[in-house]
This record gives sequence, C-alpha cells and structure tokens, in this order.
Amino acid sequence: MLIVPEREIADLMTRAAAFEAVEKVFAATAARDAYNFPVVREAIGHEDALYGFKGGFDQAGLTLGLKAGGYWPNNLDKRGLINHQSTVFLFDPDTGKVHAMVGGNLLTALRTAAASSVSIKHLAREDAKVIGMIGAGHQATFQLRAALEQRSFEKVIGWNYHPEMLPNIEKVATEAGLPFEAVELDGMTEADVIISITSAFAPSLMADHVSPGTHIACMGTDTKGKQEVESALLAKASVFTDEVAQSITIGEAQHAVAEGLIKENDVGEIGAVINATTPGRTSADQITLFDGTGVGLQDLAVAAAVVDLAVKKGIAIEVDF
Amino acid sequence: MLIVPEREIADLMTRAAAFEAVEKVFAATAARDAYNFPVVREAIGHEDALYGFKGGFDQAGLTLGLKAGGYWPNNLDKRGLINHQSTVFLFDPDTGKVHAMVGGNLLTALRTAAASSVSIKHLAREDAKVIGMIGAGHQATFQLRAALEQRSFEKVIGWNYHPEMLPNIEKVATEAGLPFEAVELDGMTEADVIISITSAFAPSLMADHVSPGTHIACMGTDTKGKQEVESALLAKASVFTDEVAQSITIGEAQHAVAEGLIKENDVGEIGAVINATTPGRTSADQITLFDGTGVGLQDLAVAAAVVDLAVKKGIAIEVDF
Repeated sequence: MLIVPEREIADLMTRAAAFEAVEKVFAATAARDAYNFPVVREAIGHEDALYGFKGGFDQAGLTLGLKAGGYWPNNLDKRGLINHQSTVFLFDPDTGKVHAMVGGNLLTALRTAAASSVSIKHLAREDAKVIGMIGAGHQATFQLRAALEQRSFEKVIGWNYHPEMLPNIEKVATEAGLPFEAVELDGMTEADVIISITSAFAPSLMADHVSPGTHIACMGTDTKGKQEVESALLAKASVFTDEVAQSITIGEAQHAVAEGLIKENDVGEIGAVINATTPGRTSADQITLFDGTGVGLQDLAVAAAVVDLAVKKGIAIEVDF
Repeated sequence: MLIVPEREIADLMTRAAAFEAVEKVFAATAARDAYNFPVVREAIGHEDALYGFKGGFDQAGLTLGLKAGGYWPNNLDKRGLINHQSTVFLFDPDTGKVHAMVGGNLLTALRTAAASSVSIKHLAREDAKVIGMIGAGHQATFQLRAALEQRSFEKVIGWNYHPEMLPNIEKVATEAGLPFEAVELDGMTEADVIISITSAFAPSLMADHVSPGTHIACMGTDTKGKQEVESALLAKASVFTDEVAQSITIGEAQHAVAEGLIKENDVGEIGAVINATTPGRTSADQITLFDGTGVGLQDLAVAAAVVDLAVKKGIAIEVDF
C-alpha cells in the first residue's frame, strides 16, 4: 500500500488537480455513479474533540474509502499542532484491501476551495468583475485564491466580524494584482460573486446585501444551528448544493427549509448542472446560491488524485502491508 | 505512525492477549468509559461487496479509531484472497493524528473468539465438561480453541449443516487431546457449553436441544434476518450481550424481542457481569446465553494490544507521517 504524508501534499497537489477531481465527483454523484455514506461525527468527551468518518464510493472513478479525523480545539495552544486533523484512507474496491493512506489536512482546505470554485465556474455570470469575501480566516485565503482563477475579476472586497483579519485576504488579492477594499456588509451589493466562509451561528449577509445577478457560495455551514446568510436570501435564489440531504439538515439551507421558505426539491445538485441535466443560471439577474456542505467523496477524489501524482513523482512511500 | 502488517499478526498476537483486551473493553463499556460509534455498513454495488466502518472510543484505555473493511465474496475464487478484509486505524485521542494502522483479518477472528471465551469465563458453570459446536467453518476453529482454555472440558461434540466440514473442529479437539463426536442437534442436550457460529437465516438450535445449566454463546448473527437459535430459547435463558442496542436490532435477540418473548431490558451487558454490577449465573440449572454481535471497540482493543507487542518486539514499521 501507498503512503503520502501530509508534508508532501503542498508540493504535489495543485488547485487545478483539486478542481478537476471535485468537479468530476460532483458530476458522478448527480449521475448516481457515486454516493456518500452516512456521516459519523462524535463529541468523544476528551479534549473537547469532535471525531468522525466521512466515507463514500465512486464507481466511476473506482474510489472507495473514508476521511477520518476531526477537530481538536486545544491542539494549537497546547501542542502547536493545527486543530483540524484528518487522514484519508483509500481502499481497493475490487478486493477490500487498503490501498493508500494520505494526509488530509491541506487536502481538506483545497477540496473545500475547489467546491466553491466549481460553483463559480458553473453558476456565476461570465462577466463577473467584483468578488466579495465574508470571512477572512485561513480557509478564506484558499477559497479566494481558487475563485480568482474562474473569472476575470478586477477587484476583491471583504468583510469580517474581526476586521483585523482582513489583511489575510488582502494579501491574496495583492498577489493576484487586484485591488482590495474592506466594506461594510451592505457594500456587498457591489459584488458579482460572494463567498462566505465563517463558522457563524447567526446570519451576516442579508438578502438586501445582495444584488440581482450575484452568485453566492456559502461554504461555512456544516452543522445544525450554523448560519451565514439570511434565510430569505435562499428564497430569492436558485439554490444548489453538493448533497441535498446534508444541505437541508446541516447545511445553509436548513434554516430556509425549517422556516418553510423553500422546500427540499427547491435545492438542486451542482453535479446536475455540471452534467447539464438541470439548468443552472438562466438569466443575468438571477441570484444563484451554492450551499457547500462538504462531502466525503470530495476528500476521496482529491486524495486519489494526489496518490496518482505522488506515484508519478516517485514520492509515495510503499509499505508491504 | 506505526504499521503492523497482517502477516505479522499471527506471530505477535496471542489468544491470552486478545482475551484480556476484549474482557477489559467490555468492562469499560459497561462502566460507560468506552462506547461504540454508529456502524456504517454499505452494499456498495461493486463485486457484491459489503463495506463499512466500526469505530469507538475507550477513554479508559485511551483507544480511538475504527475498523474499516468488509466482505468481498468473490475474493477467494477470483483472486485467492480471503473474503473478509479489514484494517484497523488507531488515532491519538489527544491530538486526532493517526497513530497506527494494523491488519485486521486475523485480529477479527481472534477478537470474535475472545468474546465467546469471555462469556464462558463469566457465565458457564465451573464444572462444565462437554462443549458443543454449532458450525464448523474457519471461524469455528478459533472459537473452539479459545473456549477450551476456559474450563476443564473433557469432550467436544459438534453439528454442522454440512457434516463434511466437521473434521475442521475435530482437529482442534484432537490437538487439545479431547475426544470429538459428531451429533444430531438433539444431541446438544449433552453439552454444558454451546457455541453457535454460523451465518444462518433460520434457527438450528431449538429450545429443547438445550439442557438446564447450559451456557450458549451465539456468535454468528450480526445482520437483520440472521438467526442461529430458536427465539423461545432466549425466553428461557438469562441473556447477555456486548452491546444491547445491536443485540436487539441485528443480533440474535432481534427475533425474541420482535416476537415479544423478551424485552430490551431483559438483555444484560456482559461487561456489567465482569464488573460484578449485575449478577451473571446465579444457579447451576440456569441457562445463560451470550449474544455476541461484534463491536468496534473489540477491534480497537486487540489492535492496540498488538501494536504494543509489535513495538516491544521491534516489529512495528515506523513511518514519518
């Protein structure tokens, strides 16, 4: 079996490879060639940790396995380790034998960034010029960097609950040669694309902060109770997601569905848009919203891609298991 | 992180170490120091395989992780590989980082055998002389070998749906210096301890095949619909299990509960007997029955034990992950 340690991922994996892997597996999911298993997520009662498994099987890509790990909130303070820790295990679907073990920390950041980028490619207006960021933490830099590759953006605007963190995303804009402007939330009306990537439990972005024709990617909500945008915004938007079942229970759509503003079948699959079996954006003033909840198949897809790259470059550690 | 490949397990792991690990984790479970996570089990629609994850956390032993794998029914015929394939992954509960990867095939056989032995130790009569086996496949040899260490048995009797397989268990009896006798099912009235280890979907052992004072370990039922013994037998017996929730839904007790013959709180925890917080056998003519459904914590416990042994013997492969 093959091992690709965390320290090798940064040199191996590209945003392009992550994008391609995630786009492909979203398409396979909508075509019912791939599916996610039920998620296990446990507060283990030790170190305040959340631990669990996200698994799935992609029959098209022949990728089987799981990501295991979670959130250890004391890691950084106590041990200088990052708080999110995960490892991906791939299995041979022909035999059930373990095939590869891959560090999952950077991959998780890349696959989450790839998801909003896939949604921008397929749902944002072609002529989008201004991208707005809600959130300015570590993950926000990944989302922005990947998003900038999807359209000819001319300006980045940003808002964060803690404004002192905005230089994180300003730096990404500057690297890309783009001007950056810190704005109030109502300044987001200027944006053609908005990415929200926070772990908030109350909405920041309200319906009247969003102009007609905007595409919004809500990437932060993955738990019951979390919320980034006003639920009325989902009622005004065409809503798409990576997995409908997650979207309406633990994703951004949970609130709009609970309040009766939208129904389950108002939430479309991004994969169906990719496959052109469902219309995506149909007009220039339509608001589109992608609810990115994060699924195991994304993790498996990027891990499989990085294993291929590691083998090609002779970097994968081979263990006779 | 540490790797212990499947090929090393046979030389490292002992029945005694497996017994100790399983007994301890059953005790920890009943003391609420350890718990199993929800089981993921999926028919993936490829190679007729069943694949899934059994995880858990033992706060007493500080063991966290999962067994991943399943059943690939075509492995042996197509590839000369065994059909049950599994791997155990242990995580550091302090950090969430992966700690060890361990071959899980032989360990699964040993932990399943250890479970019925733990039940014999704590529930069978001290003066048990005759042990009866229902089932004579590969796993039956593990169950019998482990069971023979728990009492001064003087004779092994056996029944199997395919009698031509009985030499498998006769061989184990002979190795232990004990006589073996093939019997009809009603011949099981001679047994003081009975282990059933089949994958049947209809009962073989009926209530009137069992004498007063017998201890029965039902080890084969782990799925809805499977059944090894007549449900009336559970109504006559004091019933114990590794995990009550599994026992009454996918274990041997599912049928007696569904038929209203016993109730959920008639099923006790073997760990509570080990901890002496619940009475086990209270009379010489009581029938006791252990419903061994198989839990993730057993896998983690034996895997943690084998990692310790591998480290001590310098056999664990260390990978800078």
